[in-house]
Amino acid sequence: MKLFLVGCGTGNPDHITMEGLKALRAAQLILLPVKGTRKSALADIRREILTTHLGTDAPQIQTFEIPSREPDIPYQQAVLRWHDEIAHRWQAALTKASSPEKVALMIWGDPSLYDSAIRIAERLRPVPEIQVIPGISAIQVLTAAHKIPLNRLAGDITIMTGRNLRETGIDDSIDNVVVMLDGETSFTTLPADAFDIYWGAYLGMTEQILLSGRLADIADEIIHLRAEARSRHGWIMDSYLLRRRP
Amino acid sequence: MKLFLVGCGTGNPDHITMEGLKALRAAQLILLPVKGTRKSALADIRREILTTHLGTDAPQIQTFEIPSREPDIPYQQAVLRWHDEIAHRWQAALTKASSPEKVALMIWGDPSLYDSAIRIAERLRPVPEIQVIPGISAIQVLTAAHKIPLNRLAGDITIMTGRNLRETGIDDSIDNVVVMLDGETSFTTLPADAFDIYWGAYLGMTEQILLSGRLADIADEIIHLRAEARSRHGWIMDSYLLRRRP
Repeated sequence: MKLFLVGCGTGNPDHITMEGLKALRAAQLILLPVKGTRKSALADIRREILTTHLGTDAPQIQTFEIPSREPDIPYQQAVLRWHDEIAHRWQAALTKASSPEKVALMIWGDPSLYDSAIRIAERLRPVPEIQVIPGISAIQVLTAAHKIPLNRLAGDITIMTGRNLRETGIDDSIDNVVVMLDGETSFTTLPADAFDIYWGAYLGMTEQILLSGRLADIADEIIHLRAEARSRHGWIMDSYLLRRRP
Repeated sequence: MKLFLVGCGTGNPDHITMEGLKALRAAQLILLPVKGTRKSALADIRREILTTHLGTDAPQIQTFEIPSREPDIPYQQAVLRWHDEIAHRWQAALTKASSPEKVALMIWGDPSLYDSAIRIAERLRPVPEIQVIPGISAIQVLTAAHKIPLNRLAGDITIMTGRNLRETGIDDSIDNVVVMLDGETSFTTLPADAFDIYWGAYLGMTEQILLSGRLADIADEIIHLRAEARSRHGWIMDSYLLRRRP
């Protein structure tokens, strides 16, 4: 079996690449994750990509439910068990679909960036031939929406999770940081005078919200906007770039 | 005037997104950089995107020459003057084309990542309305080709230029680094026992070359392959991911 991991961007159906569309067309089966308010919003966007760009060419869809992570065991261990469980569900969905030769998974953003699909695919038996197809990541949509370069002139870039930001902070030698997967507005743990922030939520979607300015000036506004939008939509995905002030 | 900065991926014409194609179709004029062996290879790929995906819909093309950077002044100053000179050439090309309303530039990779187009566009007079359209970057094509995640499980990612790697090295706290714009195989300045390397050149193109392994084992092979390929094609673009070994 050949498994296409197709990066499909972050919510704008037009983020899909021609390479991604060709893989989706070539597949006989698409595995589609469902469940939960956020998951169903994301599944809807994936279905929209298929109906907008493939129309009647769209292959058969087999859904699977994303399990929850076990909350009471250490984080890394919980993630590994969660990957095992997802692989188990993929395997079950594939068995139901009577041995398709080419299968595609539509990955939010880019399959290489804070995504588990590559690691999960390696747990399938027999191990499939994997083809990874890059997609537009939230970082790229964030900087494009703010019309700014990701790097300072020839400067370094750091990318980290909200969890790592809370646990390790930002080293004094680092002046340009993207934070992803942050469910807890972890920028509040930083010295607010030291940074500018470029923040975005629902990036690429019609609901997109952007804010930028001195962290000291707009942290409260982001917290308020974020809570309000999350409660209205039932879910939120956001990310942000922090730049150390001179 | 509206200026679309369209990320067009790294050499595979199918890296282009649907959003990028729509912007190229909407433009009345495309500014296309030319000159030098490498530049003409890259211009050929941009023309291939237009002929493959737009056909007779492709708008008018106006070429401009990329100037050289002045070699005898400090790096940052040379880059700023170079941006001024490129802006001057864009302005001249636009004047020749009798005031188009919508203009597109096809940016190699992603317009936000080590690219100057956003900064150069701000130098035009009158300042155009800019729309940045994300594109697949070399980093994404590198990790997709090697079928690996960019990050370690929930880990941080650093991105730097070859110049910065030579000047600052890699801090002990950093274990996962992408190096771009490296014309001098700067990985040779590192302790070779400490890292694994995932290297790629001509990423996304039919000429793509990949190598991975312990830096100590394959550094010489990369240097040799790189020199040979560069001499054969007349140019090379490569990038790589370094992972600290346990």
